[in-house]
Amino acid sequence: MADHSPRDPNFEAVIRDSFARQSFMALLGAELETVKPGRVSIGLRTREDLLQQHGFVHAGVTGAIADSAGGYAALTLCPAGTSVLSVEYKMNLLAPARGDRLIAEGRVVRSGRTITATQIDVYAIEAEERVHIAMMLQTIIALAESKSRPGG
Amino acid sequence: MADHSPRDPNFEAVIRDSFARQSFMALLGAELETVKPGRVSIGLRTREDLLQQHGFVHAGVTGAIADSAGGYAALTLCPAGTSVLSVEYKMNLLAPARGDRLIAEGRVVRSGRTITATQIDVYAIEAEERVHIAMMLQTIIALAESKSRPGG
Amino acid sequence: MADHSPRDPNFEAVIRDSFARQSFMALLGAELETVKPGRVSIGLRTREDLLQQHGFVHAGVTGAIADSAGGYAALTLCPAGTSVLSVEYKMNLLAPARGDRLIAEGRVVRSGRTITATQIDVYAIEAEERVHIAMMLQTIIALAESKSRPGG
Amino acid sequence: MADHSPRDPNFEAVIRDSFARQSFMALLGAELETVKPGRVSIGLRTREDLLQQHGFVHAGVTGAIADSAGGYAALTLCPAGTSVLSVEYKMNLLAPARGDRLIAEGRVVRSGRTITATQIDVYAIEAEERVHIAMMLQTIIALAESKSRPGG
Repeated sequence: MADHSPRDPNFEAVIRDSFARQSFMALLGAELETVKPGRVSIGLRTREDLLQQHGFVHAGVTGAIADSAGGYAALTLCPAGTSVLSVEYKMNLLAPARGDRLIAEGRVVRSGRTITATQIDVYAIEAEERVHIAMMLQTIIALAESKSRPGG
Repeated sequence: MADHSPRDPNFEAVIRDSFARQSFMALLGAELETVKPGRVSIGLRTREDLLQQHGFVHAGVTGAIADSAGGYAALTLCPAGTSVLSVEYKMNLLAPARGDRLIAEGRVVRSGRTITATQIDVYAIEAEERVHIAMMLQTIIALAESKSRPGG
Repeated sequence: MADHSPRDPNFEAVIRDSFARQSFMALLGAELETVKPGRVSIGLRTREDLLQQHGFVHAGVTGAIADSAGGYAALTLCPAGTSVLSVEYKMNLLAPARGDRLIAEGRVVRSGRTITATQIDVYAIEAEERVHIAMMLQTIIALAESKSRPGG
Repeated sequence: MADHSPRDPNFEAVIRDSFARQSFMALLGAELETVKPGRVSIGLRTREDLLQQHGFVHAGVTGAIADSAGGYAALTLCPAGTSVLSVEYKMNLLAPARGDRLIAEGRVVRSGRTITATQIDVYAIEAEERVHIAMMLQTIIALAESKSRPGG
């Protein structure tokens, strides 16, 4: 299907370095797991301070790790020196987010020169059960690094 | 246009109580501001631990306060004893989220018996400037409280 | 994963009858193909009067068959006497819609009592090549027939 | 708010010419109405061959005119020689589409060099009543004409 050959052989180190600069991922306790061409997953241990009013994990938490997983999945296929930004995303919430862990699995559906479309599925894991709690379609734009970080 | 008469005269207290139970809003430092029929806004002071890799506020933070603002806007028009859940939302990111504060302004577009459609605009505020950084369309489902909180 | 057992054994006849009443599908020349539990596909032969300004099939055509495929995929799993309505959908356009035929393949991701989430992928087919041109996430609401068709 | 100064003084003629090449708009009987900087509206007379199974106008029709209205609203602000393509859109269906006419009113929310975000509201008009039946958020990409129409 899509061509998922990385154009920057150093993509994994670039992504792990970028993720480490996301202070919000640290606040959530999110961890970068798989980093493969076209695929990135981010996991999270559920905590008492990540909840909404019914005691489930807040959709904003689910959305945050899904958005990052999709953006980095896109970045795995970009040339060196590229930044990625989310243009938009849409997320359907399929089931309450509860359990011990969440994992957001992002993958590239179509990688273009400027625009990449990704899909992200989020699962809640409790004991041995894995429940599909959310799915996201996301649009990513790739920018040459100097454009998006003028002071960088 | 739409009929925005509240059916629960106590709606503001219900919403302020519910918001106070959202531990994730506390983690973000988000505050409930306006609570009027069909309109709810949530503000946030930007902080060093809410950022993505380019130093802007993470889209997940923007999405979290927008999602809550829209859900509570829907709840302002529901009968007493109703819970609201996000079915899905879509957010376009219009500009980098930077500045001193973010504010998410949610409003009901159409309120039905089961489904409410909301729109949320998010602004970043720096000094006296107010920049439109995101817009969201959201679908909310209203449930009788006993259904959505079986142990409640 | 999801339970995709039909609750109305007559679902295929119900859907084929409903599709035959969609005058817009006839105008497009769309045809109902697969009708299985949780899965419906709709095909279309491309024509000169379905195009946009660049000579590709209009995104509105793609959206129309995708929307119908998703709605009917949801209906395969509903009890007898149910109507389905689209609450919302989001579609990413992945590649130009050209070729001899389009096919929209809808499937249920999660089927709830009131809300069903579906995903629809649309392919353009030319000679032996099959190109993924669009993907849609859709929210469907199920209603007892008498509610949605008061004069029916 | 956004800067809505047209960069191509000839934008209206360009858009009316482009619309006239959309054979699918002709099939629907859609007509280009307002063409102003940042705003385009498209109207449609409802017909017996535009319906879904409950006798309302098919969501695909609503989506088609909304998508075109948003794309052309974006094009009003682009330099001469630009083509626009829809990257994605999301539409919430607010009420059944019935009545004598539909009108889709598109406007630019944010116009960037590459990406434009638009919002489109669709109304159904019967006698003197105007009902808000759908709202769409859309992402448009602007391309230099030679790129998108290699044989043009």
